[in-house]
Amino acid sequence: MTNEIDVDLGERSYSIRLGVNLIGQPSLLDEYFSGTQALIVTNDAVKELYLDALISSLPNSMKINTVIVPDGEAYKTLETYARVIDKLVETRHNRTTTVIALGGGVIGDLAGFAAATYQRGVTFVQIPTTLLALVDSAVGGKTAVNHAHGKNLIGTFYQPRCVIADVATLRTLPERELRAGLAEVIKYGVIYDSQFFDWIDEQLERLVKIETDAMIHAVRRSCQIKASIVQADERELGKRAILNYGHTFGHALEAVTGYQQLLHGEAVAIGMVMAADLSMRLGWLPTTQASRIRDLVKRAGLPVSPPSLSSSAVFDAMNMDKKVVDGQIRLVLAKGIGEVIVTDEASTETIFETLDAKDDLCLA
Amino acid sequence: MTNEIDVDLGERSYSIRLGVNLIGQPSLLDEYFSGTQALIVTNDAVKELYLDALISSLPNSMKINTVIVPDGEAYKTLETYARVIDKLVETRHNRTTTVIALGGGVIGDLAGFAAATYQRGVTFVQIPTTLLALVDSAVGGKTAVNHAHGKNLIGTFYQPRCVIADVATLRTLPERELRAGLAEVIKYGVIYDSQFFDWIDEQLERLVKIETDAMIHAVRRSCQIKASIVQADERELGKRAILNYGHTFGHALEAVTGYQQLLHGEAVAIGMVMAADLSMRLGWLPTTQASRIRDLVKRAGLPVSPPSLSSSAVFDAMNMDKKVVDGQIRLVLAKGIGEVIVTDEASTETIFETLDAKDDLCLA
Repeated sequence: MTNEIDVDLGERSYSIRLGVNLIGQPSLLDEYFSGTQALIVTNDAVKELYLDALISSLPNSMKINTVIVPDGEAYKTLETYARVIDKLVETRHNRTTTVIALGGGVIGDLAGFAAATYQRGVTFVQIPTTLLALVDSAVGGKTAVNHAHGKNLIGTFYQPRCVIADVATLRTLPERELRAGLAEVIKYGVIYDSQFFDWIDEQLERLVKIETDAMIHAVRRSCQIKASIVQADERELGKRAILNYGHTFGHALEAVTGYQQLLHGEAVAIGMVMAADLSMRLGWLPTTQASRIRDLVKRAGLPVSPPSLSSSAVFDAMNMDKKVVDGQIRLVLAKGIGEVIVTDEASTETIFETLDAKDDLCLA
Repeated sequence: MTNEIDVDLGERSYSIRLGVNLIGQPSLLDEYFSGTQALIVTNDAVKELYLDALISSLPNSMKINTVIVPDGEAYKTLETYARVIDKLVETRHNRTTTVIALGGGVIGDLAGFAAATYQRGVTFVQIPTTLLALVDSAVGGKTAVNHAHGKNLIGTFYQPRCVIADVATLRTLPERELRAGLAEVIKYGVIYDSQFFDWIDEQLERLVKIETDAMIHAVRRSCQIKASIVQADERELGKRAILNYGHTFGHALEAVTGYQQLLHGEAVAIGMVMAADLSMRLGWLPTTQASRIRDLVKRAGLPVSPPSLSSSAVFDAMNMDKKVVDGQIRLVLAKGIGEVIVTDEASTETIFETLDAKDDLCLA
């Protein structure tokens, strides 16, 4: 069974092909190639699991190279990017080549930036292998590497030619990473669709067990929501910013902990609870709804309190976020489950109340 | 007097403002800024001449930073690019900032790549200060840095918000660089407009003396031709390739001489004569017209023979060019002055005849 979700962006339109056991199918990508070369970007763990199967899906006649990059957010740097570019140059890939990202969000962001900038842009295919990448980073065309002083400060908007969303890959994912991905699934409910939030609430145990029909529905609805937001605002001039719900807090937590302690989805989980808490303090979100958000995040096995950190350090890191414009922190805050706004109305004092709340977020 | 040349690229459209003594005029860029920060990218020589004047053109209320990068093609690297990005991060520029390139082609390509990729793209303004940049690299949206194994292998298509084309800057340009820029002016005649070629032939001495009306006309017509070609094919999927006339040979000469011996325009000058020679050998270009191209290049004070190099080394370097697809060298060759084609029909043997001709290019 394959579902197709169209991302309609004019001449940059593409489809997300969603299904089970797609990697390994013959002729998987034939229709997307424009030349006879491809570079697969992956890491050691994913290589062991899926590289051979992927190569069996590609035409024998093609020249396939592979570059293995180190795993983890700490390696999503200009240095690792330069290694991918070096591989393309040294193995003489021309402008009709295809770069294939096989892995999670780090691989996708990095390979996408290489595809966007090698010879001013070559064909790019996303094959996400984590839940976070399936529902978020592989869809929407953001590519990036980190700078020592901030996450994703370097990158482009560059759409893939297609996304192969194979939920079978989730069966080999460490449970901690699966739960981290659920944070982004919950996010779509909070920002856009209260019915979807209710559905996640009911089906959570089946999602954690990766039951196929439930997981397919969760990925499909998440991708549909992301696609409709991206279609309305590809380059994040306005509405697309709502996708960053929980992310300004989350990015700051990641930065202050040196990208070592928290997975991105875990930081977003805490960030979503902090954003709900702040929304509640501002009188915008009823306490019962803030508590529902906190409870669902907690039931998903995700943290709902920040690590022990200086509130000032977290606040300073929030000020380095890309969403800060002319010194004013812009936050995505909730007016209800399914409805968020982008605002700079939260005062520094109230933000510090949330930062200082620690274990008591979203409690009345 | 200001002329405006529109580059019509839909939502990415912009104007080239052409005139004399534009840098230093009050409110020069006010209409283009979207925030209150700007970073000027320049080099030591240009800084001495124009930085103060440019700053006097900017609003006092803006936060202006400057980054000085080393001069020359050899420094158009990922390392120098990373220095520009570091400056943007360390001085806390946000996504409403404007990157201003003040300098020649190296500065424009490098600053443009930084603008295209900082926070996934910020406003970019080109202020070219060399003839080559005025008529070629500042117009059309190509940004790039070099890789050790090839020129401009890393980059993006990213259009500026405007180009300030101030021909007064040419009066401080070293004569060798002025002549190098004339190579690209001559190129527009060869590829697109035989009347313009005739006009350059008649007015050459006035151009070398930088007489204002002649220079304005040369820059305007060059920019018009470039704009019309770029409008038809922004991302070089087809016709835009004709702008590379002389460049496959020229890039190879630059690469084999380590980007040290020849200015880009000088390499293009030799490359245009080599392309004319090859066109003549293939029976496409009458000897009289090939000789006219060679003679005009020579009268402009530009080299018409390659340095003493191994033909095989140059041929290998041509094979690393971006225009090579699936092992076949694609060249822009002339069918007449004002008419060129993109072709892969030149045999290796005939290309070597041109490479071996040395001092006898375009001679019957």
